[in-house]
Amino acid sequence: MNNLTKKAVALVSGGLDSATSLAMARDRGFECYALSFDYGQRHRIELEASRRVAESLGVREHRVFTLDLRQFGGSALTDDSIDVPQGPSEGIPATYVPARNTIFLSLALGWAEVLGALDLFIGVNAVDYSGYPDCRPEFIDAFEKTANLATKAGVEGQHFSIHAPLIHMTKAQIIATGHRLGVDYGLTLSCYDPDSSGRACGVCDSCRLRAAGFREAGVPDPTPYKTQ
Amino acid sequence: MNNLTKKAVALVSGGLDSATSLAMARDRGFECYALSFDYGQRHRIELEASRRVAESLGVREHRVFTLDLRQFGGSALTDDSIDVPQGPSEGIPATYVPARNTIFLSLALGWAEVLGALDLFIGVNAVDYSGYPDCRPEFIDAFEKTANLATKAGVEGQHFSIHAPLIHMTKAQIIATGHRLGVDYGLTLSCYDPDSSGRACGVCDSCRLRAAGFREAGVPDPTPYKTQ
Repeated sequence: MNNLTKKAVALVSGGLDSATSLAMARDRGFECYALSFDYGQRHRIELEASRRVAESLGVREHRVFTLDLRQFGGSALTDDSIDVPQGPSEGIPATYVPARNTIFLSLALGWAEVLGALDLFIGVNAVDYSGYPDCRPEFIDAFEKTANLATKAGVEGQHFSIHAPLIHMTKAQIIATGHRLGVDYGLTLSCYDPDSSGRACGVCDSCRLRAAGFREAGVPDPTPYKTQ
Repeated sequence: MNNLTKKAVALVSGGLDSATSLAMARDRGFECYALSFDYGQRHRIELEASRRVAESLGVREHRVFTLDLRQFGGSALTDDSIDVPQGPSEGIPATYVPARNTIFLSLALGWAEVLGALDLFIGVNAVDYSGYPDCRPEFIDAFEKTANLATKAGVEGQHFSIHAPLIHMTKAQIIATGHRLGVDYGLTLSCYDPDSSGRACGVCDSCRLRAAGFREAGVPDPTPYKTQ
């Protein structure tokens, strides 16, 4: 591909999916700017993971943007009065953070416009999406339309693209792809309830999907578990 | 109207337009939750104005959400190295803040979902819109579609409405409407370059539009000007 000088902003949470999405952006020849959010999530250790992931994948810059979504609450991830589910759940789970991906993409869009980047990468997935509405293709498409109407670049005839390269992939396909691209999944953290040293619980929705993905992909699972 | 118990989130900047938009939400019978942003804007005095406006219009609650857009810069309003224009400008002005209304509406959407509100009010205007792309009806429509795809409420069959009641009004019509609804425009601040006591410069784009609006509406202009 011949876009070595094109910049992309990639959202990086510290998890497996966004690490893979970032690796795919790099593989497509983009100069990557990683963006993470210190939004009041329960586990600060996620931000440490995002720093390790961004550094290991050679980003041009990694920013951690602070905005405290605990000012609103409303999710098990941003409100201590709401418990994180410890097993399978139906419908939209308690870990849904109201409008989170809309908020994160909006801020990524703002930074992209300042940088002169027209490509945004987000590691959402609609196959194993756990019921989150803002991980579906129709949401990504709608946000892309909004982005092109909202911005100076869009009005002036340039085009923002919101890339969600994992959106139709299974967890096993994501892991196989990242493995091929050299992602060190030992640096990533997916668990909703890790211990203070970052070891995963092995029982939350996110842990169960992740472990099954490694098994199905035939890739050794480097995740440190509490229960091991 | 028979929606006295319906909640609305109204964006309130401390300026004339958003004060009028809030007054119109109240007039339509909504219980109003005002949301302002401490985003690193040059003039903290705007936040004081937003508090006075929200209080004077009897909101149920006023939140000031902190997120420092100076982390990105890129606008005369969020980057001290970019000057605020002191006269008329062409095209998209230096005071454009990348993706600002997308970011603000996204956060308003998050708070609305936590509150159980389905109505958001924003005081954007496409007539005197000064070249901002995210003040146009097509942007508002696109954001509303995105909001309904992004959220639990949207997926579960409820409908978010993004109200931009000023969008097709002239500044004079806005002022006449707010005047009729009892808005005290002496509490509002529109200037891009006020002095430390909140007196307006009288020469920036925003001051010129505002002053002309009062003249055209035949409403006495309560704005304190530096040059008076």
